[in-house]
Amino acid sequence: MTDFGLSDGYIGIMKGVIWQIAPQAQIADLTHEIPPQDILAGAITLARCAPFFPAMTVHLGVVDPGVGTSRRTIAARLNDQLFVGPDNGLLTLLIEKAEREGQKVEFIHLDQPRFWLDRISYSFHGRDVFAPVGAHLANGVPLRDLGTPIENPVRLAIPKPERTPGGWRGQVLHVDHFGNCATNLGEEQISGIGQMVIDIKGRKIHNMVKSFGERQTGELIAMFDSDGRMAIGIVNGSAAGLLHIRVGDWVEVMTGSSR
Amino acid sequence: MTDFGLSDGYIGIMKGVIWQIAPQAQIADLTHEIPPQDILAGAITLARCAPFFPAMTVHLGVVDPGVGTSRRTIAARLNDQLFVGPDNGLLTLLIEKAEREGQKVEFIHLDQPRFWLDRISYSFHGRDVFAPVGAHLANGVPLRDLGTPIENPVRLAIPKPERTPGGWRGQVLHVDHFGNCATNLGEEQISGIGQMVIDIKGRKIHNMVKSFGERQTGELIAMFDSDGRMAIGIVNGSAAGLLHIRVGDWVEVMTGSSR
Amino acid sequence: MTDFGLSDGYIGIMKGVIWQIAPQAQIADLTHEIPPQDILAGAITLARCAPFFPAMTVHLGVVDPGVGTSRRTIAARLNDQLFVGPDNGLLTLLIEKAEREGQKVEFIHLDQPRFWLDRISYSFHGRDVFAPVGAHLANGVPLRDLGTPIENPVRLAIPKPERTPGGWRGQVLHVDHFGNCATNLGEEQISGIGQMVIDIKGRKIHNMVKSFGERQTGELIAMFDSDGRMAIGIVNGSAAGLLHIRVGDWVEVMTGSSR
Repeated sequence: MTDFGLSDGYIGIMKGVIWQIAPQAQIADLTHEIPPQDILAGAITLARCAPFFPAMTVHLGVVDPGVGTSRRTIAARLNDQLFVGPDNGLLTLLIEKAEREGQKVEFIHLDQPRFWLDRISYSFHGRDVFAPVGAHLANGVPLRDLGTPIENPVRLAIPKPERTPGGWRGQVLHVDHFGNCATNLGEEQISGIGQMVIDIKGRKIHNMVKSFGERQTGELIAMFDSDGRMAIGIVNGSAAGLLHIRVGDWVEVMTGSSR
Repeated sequence: MTDFGLSDGYIGIMKGVIWQIAPQAQIADLTHEIPPQDILAGAITLARCAPFFPAMTVHLGVVDPGVGTSRRTIAARLNDQLFVGPDNGLLTLLIEKAEREGQKVEFIHLDQPRFWLDRISYSFHGRDVFAPVGAHLANGVPLRDLGTPIENPVRLAIPKPERTPGGWRGQVLHVDHFGNCATNLGEEQISGIGQMVIDIKGRKIHNMVKSFGERQTGELIAMFDSDGRMAIGIVNGSAAGLLHIRVGDWVEVMTGSSR
Repeated sequence: MTDFGLSDGYIGIMKGVIWQIAPQAQIADLTHEIPPQDILAGAITLARCAPFFPAMTVHLGVVDPGVGTSRRTIAARLNDQLFVGPDNGLLTLLIEKAEREGQKVEFIHLDQPRFWLDRISYSFHGRDVFAPVGAHLANGVPLRDLGTPIENPVRLAIPKPERTPGGWRGQVLHVDHFGNCATNLGEEQISGIGQMVIDIKGRKIHNMVKSFGERQTGELIAMFDSDGRMAIGIVNGSAAGLLHIRVGDWVEVMTGSSR
């Protein structure tokens, strides 16, 4: 997962570097369309994708506005999966989940250049550091050989839902390809609420549905998405496009029938 | 093949699920840029691509506006290839071809949840149903173990060319990345016609060429494309962009010299 | 690497054809977003990517405005890597490098149809010729079996930097996903220059930095990029977007302090 886009060959280069070291590696792209330098978007996407991969998958996550500065680089083990990238918060949601579930976590500062390319550029550590380190991990090199254990990986402040007098105030965390808008409101806030009114950009939605199919084309709905987050959508349409919804926009949930 | 786009990690997730079940699977993307909910575009693309893959390839085709409703899901064998997805017409062109050529066809309603993920969402059956079913097929699970045989898969109405007094009227079925516009007119309509005038959006083309190289940069041409369909193009340019051609636009072929 | 885009399934088809012949092949995409028919952009991208792949990797490079004409097709060995595509200059930079470094080069005109698909279209030799030839190479078929040796592959005129009274005049050769603008000025021109002023689109930059991290967000900088070329960028922003920089724009380097 990167914010490199697909137009320049940067991703192809990283795969070449990986196969030089680990020719047997099978490589999948999560996405390379994280908005440039948007670490929070990267953290959300990585947390959505990683749990569906086999044990001991190596995940490279490179959204790296600090490349070429003194920012740390890390490798991590969270439960049964491995992660490599800049130490800038990309793993925040996955770390929180691992801690919540009491899983094993381990963090290594990458300070062993013998696992990197010979020449390190100032702007493409995806190629020079993270791809080779990931390939060595895929080859079975133990995590701790790659550097020095640390215990304080950088964490992002992830926007949390807030209690309001009448319910909850959340935020849009992600807008997907279809224009569906995932919020930071989940079952832990919403379950147990019976009747509710959801307000987004001044538009009101009465109660959630289970699936798009319960409403007609063009209707605005709220439902739990495939990650279990409350999402705002339009049946066979784009909620983000039509209502100009962006990441960070407020979503209000008022419990009880409002009229 | 999906309409999921590449920005959200949905495709990466599906590959993770596949590799959990079938770690040896080699996976190629056909495209994930089918216009959202456009089943006809998906059917055309799948029919263009599938024949070029090895026997017993498993094709996942997920353009699924009915996800979360009671729409059926199917797996199919058409000749020597396997298909998995929603039962909404995505296979129409491939079924028609298999029937025309007298090939073996077999359809299964996916009603055996033991081949799915444990938890089924209301909006991402690509992850929860189709990826795991496809992976089990890749592992050699027999098609009929996955569900119940059916004989009436949903079929789309595919626009057919019509006879006119002076020739044929067809439609643009697909506009590609280069702006070339493929029609539903093929050799079965056009071969045997000597001189002809082709009319699209009021622009007239005199006779077809075999290749772009027969005309100069900027000229409007008609030729049989790599699928054997009549396509309208501009040499080293975009016919769709310059003439504002869209899927569904009419193409008239008038036989004989028109002047 | 192609200019086919990802929307139509063309790339998926090529992978199907490759796997029909070489089922064991691991396939990576360099990029398919080369601007349509832009051979120079393709040559620059291929030269950036290829060196990072394992020995005996087969690179398919298909930017092919002459498809269907009498333009030649070639396969090449440059040092320890293999290349297949139209003979239109896509290999120019790699050939120049191989010659500069005294590496082995070998060129073959592809004139043995037994290594192609049975039916050759007039517009999709990526599918009909290059994918099958590449797959046979991946299977270990010797290069010279594929056709007739030639010694004069087509070469592009690559824009070279020019001496000026006060320094150098170069050009922007590539604008990447982040809006960073790589020029044809490299260490061979710049190293040894102490103080300098760089002029692009009337904006002046005083001296180069080593990394983005040396300046604040929003500042215009010049640095050597990960290919060793002078690149113009904006810290956490898009130089191309803000300054409307395009490929071909001039970059002036004036040595010495200009004030």
